[in-house]
Amino acid sequence: PDIRCAQDYERLAQQFMVLPHYEYVAGGCGRDITVAANLNAFALWAIYPRLLRDVTAGHTRLTLGQQTFHHPVFMAPVAFQQLAHPAGEIDTARAAQAMQSCMVSSTLSSVRMEDVATVANNGGSPRWFQLYFQPQQNDTLDLINRAANTGYSAIVVTLDASIQAASLRAQRAGFRMPPGCVAANLRDHSAPASITLSPGESRVFQGIMRDAPTWKDLEWLMTQTSLPVWVKGVLHPDDARALQNMGVAGIIVSNHGGRSLDGAPASLDALPAIRAAVGSSFPLLLDSGIRSGSDIFKALALGADAVLIGRLQMYALSVAGALGVAHMIKLLCEELEICMSLAGCATLKEINRGALVRCGA
Amino acid sequence: PDIRCAQDYERLAQQFMVLPHYEYVAGGCGRDITVAANLNAFALWAIYPRLLRDVTAGHTRLTLGQQTFHHPVFMAPVAFQQLAHPAGEIDTARAAQAMQSCMVSSTLSSVRMEDVATVANNGGSPRWFQLYFQPQQNDTLDLINRAANTGYSAIVVTLDASIQAASLRAQRAGFRMPPGCVAANLRDHSAPASITLSPGESRVFQGIMRDAPTWKDLEWLMTQTSLPVWVKGVLHPDDARALQNMGVAGIIVSNHGGRSLDGAPASLDALPAIRAAVGSSFPLLLDSGIRSGSDIFKALALGADAVLIGRLQMYALSVAGALGVAHMIKLLCEELEICMSLAGCATLKEINRGALVRCGA
Amino acid sequence: PDIRCAQDYERLAQQFMVLPHYEYVAGGCGRDITVAANLNAFALWAIYPRLLRDVTAGHTRLTLGQQTFHHPVFMAPVAFQQLAHPAGEIDTARAAQAMQSCMVSSTLSSVRMEDVATVANNGGSPRWFQLYFQPQQNDTLDLINRAANTGYSAIVVTLDASIQAASLRAQRAGFRMPPGCVAANLRDHSAPASITLSPGESRVFQGIMRDAPTWKDLEWLMTQTSLPVWVKGVLHPDDARALQNMGVAGIIVSNHGGRSLDGAPASLDALPAIRAAVGSSFPLLLDSGIRSGSDIFKALALGADAVLIGRLQMYALSVAGALGVAHMIKLLCEELEICMSLAGCATLKEINRGALVRCGA
Amino acid sequence: PDIRCAQDYERLAQQFMVLPHYEYVAGGCGRDITVAANLNAFALWAIYPRLLRDVTAGHTRLTLGQQTFHHPVFMAPVAFQQLAHPAGEIDTARAAQAMQSCMVSSTLSSVRMEDVATVANNGGSPRWFQLYFQPQQNDTLDLINRAANTGYSAIVVTLDASIQAASLRAQRAGFRMPPGCVAANLRDHSAPASITLSPGESRVFQGIMRDAPTWKDLEWLMTQTSLPVWVKGVLHPDDARALQNMGVAGIIVSNHGGRSLDGAPASLDALPAIRAAVGSSFPLLLDSGIRSGSDIFKALALGADAVLIGRLQMYALSVAGALGVAHMIKLLCEELEICMSLAGCATLKEINRGALVRCGA
Ligand SMILES: Cc1cc2nc3c(=O)[nH]c(=O)nc-3n(C[C@H](O)[C@H](O)[C@H](O)COP(=O)(O)O)c2cc1C
Ligand SMILES: Cc1cc2nc3c(=O)[nH]c(=O)nc-3n(C[C@H](O)[C@H](O)[C@H](O)COP(=O)(O)O)c2cc1C
Ligand SMILES: Cc1cc2nc3c(=O)[nH]c(=O)nc-3n(C[C@H](O)[C@H](O)[C@H](O)COP(=O)(O)O)c2cc1C
Ligand SMILES: Cc1cc2nc3c(=O)[nH]c(=O)nc-3n(C[C@H](O)[C@H](O)[C@H](O)COP(=O)(O)O)c2cc1C
Repeated sequence: PDIRCAQDYERLAQQFMVLPHYEYVAGGCGRDITVAANLNAFALWAIYPRLLRDVTAGHTRLTLGQQTFHHPVFMAPVAFQQLAHPAGEIDTARAAQAMQSCMVSSTLSSVRMEDVATVANNGGSPRWFQLYFQPQQNDTLDLINRAANTGYSAIVVTLDASIQAASLRAQRAGFRMPPGCVAANLRDHSAPASITLSPGESRVFQGIMRDAPTWKDLEWLMTQTSLPVWVKGVLHPDDARALQNMGVAGIIVSNHGGRSLDGAPASLDALPAIRAAVGSSFPLLLDSGIRSGSDIFKALALGADAVLIGRLQMYALSVAGALGVAHMIKLLCEELEICMSLAGCATLKEINRGALVRCGA
Repeated sequence: PDIRCAQDYERLAQQFMVLPHYEYVAGGCGRDITVAANLNAFALWAIYPRLLRDVTAGHTRLTLGQQTFHHPVFMAPVAFQQLAHPAGEIDTARAAQAMQSCMVSSTLSSVRMEDVATVANNGGSPRWFQLYFQPQQNDTLDLINRAANTGYSAIVVTLDASIQAASLRAQRAGFRMPPGCVAANLRDHSAPASITLSPGESRVFQGIMRDAPTWKDLEWLMTQTSLPVWVKGVLHPDDARALQNMGVAGIIVSNHGGRSLDGAPASLDALPAIRAAVGSSFPLLLDSGIRSGSDIFKALALGADAVLIGRLQMYALSVAGALGVAHMIKLLCEELEICMSLAGCATLKEINRGALVRCGA
Repeated sequence: PDIRCAQDYERLAQQFMVLPHYEYVAGGCGRDITVAANLNAFALWAIYPRLLRDVTAGHTRLTLGQQTFHHPVFMAPVAFQQLAHPAGEIDTARAAQAMQSCMVSSTLSSVRMEDVATVANNGGSPRWFQLYFQPQQNDTLDLINRAANTGYSAIVVTLDASIQAASLRAQRAGFRMPPGCVAANLRDHSAPASITLSPGESRVFQGIMRDAPTWKDLEWLMTQTSLPVWVKGVLHPDDARALQNMGVAGIIVSNHGGRSLDGAPASLDALPAIRAAVGSSFPLLLDSGIRSGSDIFKALALGADAVLIGRLQMYALSVAGALGVAHMIKLLCEELEICMSLAGCATLKEINRGALVRCGA
Repeated sequence: PDIRCAQDYERLAQQFMVLPHYEYVAGGCGRDITVAANLNAFALWAIYPRLLRDVTAGHTRLTLGQQTFHHPVFMAPVAFQQLAHPAGEIDTARAAQAMQSCMVSSTLSSVRMEDVATVANNGGSPRWFQLYFQPQQNDTLDLINRAANTGYSAIVVTLDASIQAASLRAQRAGFRMPPGCVAANLRDHSAPASITLSPGESRVFQGIMRDAPTWKDLEWLMTQTSLPVWVKGVLHPDDARALQNMGVAGIIVSNHGGRSLDGAPASLDALPAIRAAVGSSFPLLLDSGIRSGSDIFKALALGADAVLIGRLQMYALSVAGALGVAHMIKLLCEELEICMSLAGCATLKEINRGALVRCGA
């Protein structure tokens, strides 16, 4: 009823999720410094309106590698969507298919990727699979093979979350994963070997980080699949260049919505240097902090080809299931189109740095 | 009783308008980012007091093209003024005439321009007519011809509002246009043809924007009238230069008071680059965010020849009708004159960039 | 009881003055923009502690022209001190004498300058007289002659207050000057001729500003007195240079505590350019926004020779009369000395720009 | 129960200390300007996550001069720890020993250094002794000799607190040192000669500062001990260079947690210039404002070799004695290690300026 813009789902979700779940989704990690930075970063840019340009042939289509998309509003990989709605990822997939949005399915989906695939099996936009490296190589292989077999057309390896401190906000609200909500894709994997530390060893360096992927693992992965491999979680231009040289299909500039390293720079702030590092035609997505169509416009103007939506997805899902997510995508697309129209841009290609000006400068 | 400065009308208006109407006037569009930017922009400049200068021959007169004005405080085009007061634009016109302020009458006036003309038919300052391009060229022609015939001495084409999202604040307060309040100037026009979209077409690009004016339309307009044509809603220096080259009479630097593209730069921030683009003698007005005489002084120092007052007009109208508007204009003029006196400027020409200093610099 | 630092008097005064009086003192003019700027300006500088320097021969003495002072904490001219305390300027004078502070007595004192002179007639620091030009030259002459005859050793002409809008805060609190509180120095002057405006004339330019002093008036003044003439209210370096060339004894960088032009720069922000304009040895004082010893240190480091205290004087007077003012001066002096000690400066001369660093830089 | 990060002890401590004690610890001096600056300084830097680096051989060991440490989290000298817990410094020492943290024992310890030494006498990290110069040279000698005799392996001379204004917050909360809480190390020293001032002398320059140490005193001290001598409280690069030239073992960049000169720059802001002044290999510690592992990471990236923890020590002590302090150290170490892992740094040496980026830049 009272939903006028995509961000309204953020407000409304607080009435549709129990507090601990809401806090789990909304919070970042640590003291939420990066969560705040993500939002502030967008506020520091203004968009130039341009006059009298004909945009009646306008559209928002784009091509990334071999794939084309109706619009640049992708669904970020978001784990455990049954926290927001009993139908979980099934409903998100339905919405993505209906709205022709590229959905990136999480390794930690609360619904098996095979089930997601059945509801989003024809038409719409491509579906991608987000991979977390598993402690056992076999399990990693199992995931990417199943993804390839069920129609996921790209692998997105998330590399910024080797350690993920639980959100302080979630912990304070008493968040616990509800019993039914599990990582369905991993159900048949054997439990990881428990880690024993020698005296003097660090629970972090010699413990948690023991299974963290390194450059070798990524190289290995790229030999194991014929799907395009994207990397998610890049903020430093040197990492971007190295990944480009390795031959990844594209990069997602992201700080995991402020959920990985508290104190990491805002994704948007990191974007221009990365675009400069990889050149103008290398595929680059961005997420973290997108709440409106004008945020999307700004990300595109600063170098992204498309964006991924994280939290808004969960908020809309909690409010109205598939319908909510579809509506949220529609609102974002229209907000973007209005922004483009007023900025005189008929296509995404016309959105460039010259469309923005630093606030107060 | 408690009105000591022009901005006091803002506070008081909340007691004189019902909340939804107040919110409709006060709000911008989207998340009110540009509304806030407009106000902040003024706060970042300080004015140098200058000592011992003789200003006893001081005045605030100015000339724009062939027209002279007693002071640089113009009434911006503001639609549907009956929302603020039953007499609506009639009272504003009375006040403008009494205070010798140039009133710009909106296409969307709730009173016909002919009726406005009768109460402001002699003396005072020039009256101008603000034009929104109509879907049908005939209707546009009808408007500018009627304006010319009833003594409006310039056409102000507003070009920044091809799409105007309703204000979120207004929507949340439940704003609806009251039945009696209509666009009186358009009463005899036929309803616009409804838009049918083909599958895959965008409600924005192929829908709303279908009727948005382009450069051709503006060229056409300039052949249809002998009145000077101003353009309102310019923020980018390239647009300003192009319009100047086309031969428009002058430009109004404006973001529509933050009511058009949420995220557009503050008008004041955009002004210096535009003044630089069009040269020192091209007529340039500014609006958006003016709340006091010192705001006017700052706009003039950064390159404007005069300013337009939007919301304060509605606020004063709601509080005390014609008397309120007249008093508000008087307060602004005196605030400006006091500011000029303390800054040692006897005339508007003496107000220049050297009179300001960036705060904290 | 609960007074640990000079600024505590600000808090306490709210219990000792009725609200309208407190608001009158605390408020600036207009929207208090400059009042806030004055305080913020100090917060943007940090002071370097320096180690191991011997300051046991330290003192705070200074010389300005022929006069020496025990410390750089002067009492600014503050009108109508009976608003704060029945004894008014008499008590301030007692405190200044006891604390060897230079008191600048206002033209608008609520106690005659002759009476002030009797309680502060020997020892202590010099007393100065602050002059507002009067509409009638004779009255101006009367004031400076009386000042010379009763031992005031300098004339401080305040030039930034040709127009002084009443404080909005004061007006809103319903401030009115209480009947007994008058400009005692002017009691025998005849009432100023009332101003009649011709049609079309401005109440500001042709009205209030008619009697505002110009360069000629200042030149005249300097021929009429053998006392050193200081000018108070300078913020622009060009004015400072012009005054220096005219031969004034010194300049007080001030925006009248934010009570004259709302939107004027902070005094502290204006100081460095003025010091640069007049050279390193020209006498320069500063006021506006001083609330602590470290504020004084910063002003001195940026180019002032001494500072004047405005509002704190009234606050302390309201709380405890002469004792309050004396205690406030003592606290400021000690705060300054502590600051100097920790910054390794034994004398005022050692306080320079190198002692400061811009915050966060 | 609800302790998820080191800073949680700050919140919890308010329930474990009476308000005046809490305010005494939390407050700085004056208006707490520097306390706030210390915290803000960290917030202005972001940390770059780096991908795919192998940190499984990671550790946090470091060497300073001849001494090695398991991690860079030292316990700052904090006086009167019995304010937080009856066991006072004894418990802190136990925790430091257990967590192999270098504890710097204060001259103003509420427990004798000899007693501290007995509980932390083997293993763990080195213990250091913090020296305040005493009015009588003999007493100073007594302190350093006792320190040497009881196994303290370095002297840290604190030089930024010649004058230490009591905290306004503490005073307002009615703080008084409880009777039992005394400077136990000084118990056998004779009371300092009381200071008599001649007329005209300053309570500050000729009073308090009479006993403040100067360069000569430091030179003398260095001849009296064979222990390495560190200097604590340096913020200006010139002082750092001078101390380095004198041959001190290392420098602690510190503003005493904002408890000495209110208005001093944030330690973190001062660090880069000092590192530049002393060269890349001179031992440099930092304290003031550290509240988390990412704060430590930032300090190291900007040039510190290790950091000292002040207030968090007292907070944790108040909540759970030795266990609390040990837990707090453990949390900080893990937070640091997580930060290092995500930033791709396996050792402290790899943490450098390139790991950071200024926020919003
Ligand atoms: C509840 C939640 C779960 C997430 N789970 C995953 C995940 O499983 N894999 C992944 O790569 N990113 C995950 N992310 C990060 C998102 O993909 C995305 O980077 C982030 O949410 C973008 O920021 P935004 O929420 O501000 O849009 C998750 C984010 C949230 C909020
Ligand atoms: C209630 C309202 C109605 C408006 N209607 C029009 C209009 O019909 N035509 C137009 O060109 N601008 C219109 N504007 C914009 C004003 O002309 C002007 O650009 C803006 O109000 C200036 O900002 P300010 O309100 O901060 O002074 C309207 C503004 C408001 C607040
Ligand atoms: C209540 C009040 C009355 C004042 N009266 C005078 C005056 O009569 N003459 C004058 O030159 N300045 C006057 N001033 C300005 C002060 O001299 C001084 O410039 C200002 O108070 C300094 O700022 P501060 O209050 O922040 O210290 C007055 C200020 C106040 C607050
Ligand atoms: C309650 C308290 C007592 C302190 N006592 C001493 C002391 O005796 N000697 C000293 O050199 N520093 C002392 N300090 C300063 C600390 O060593 C350290 O510089 C400061 O606390 C660091 O800032 P932080 O509290 O933000 O970590 C004290 C600090 C506090 C909070």
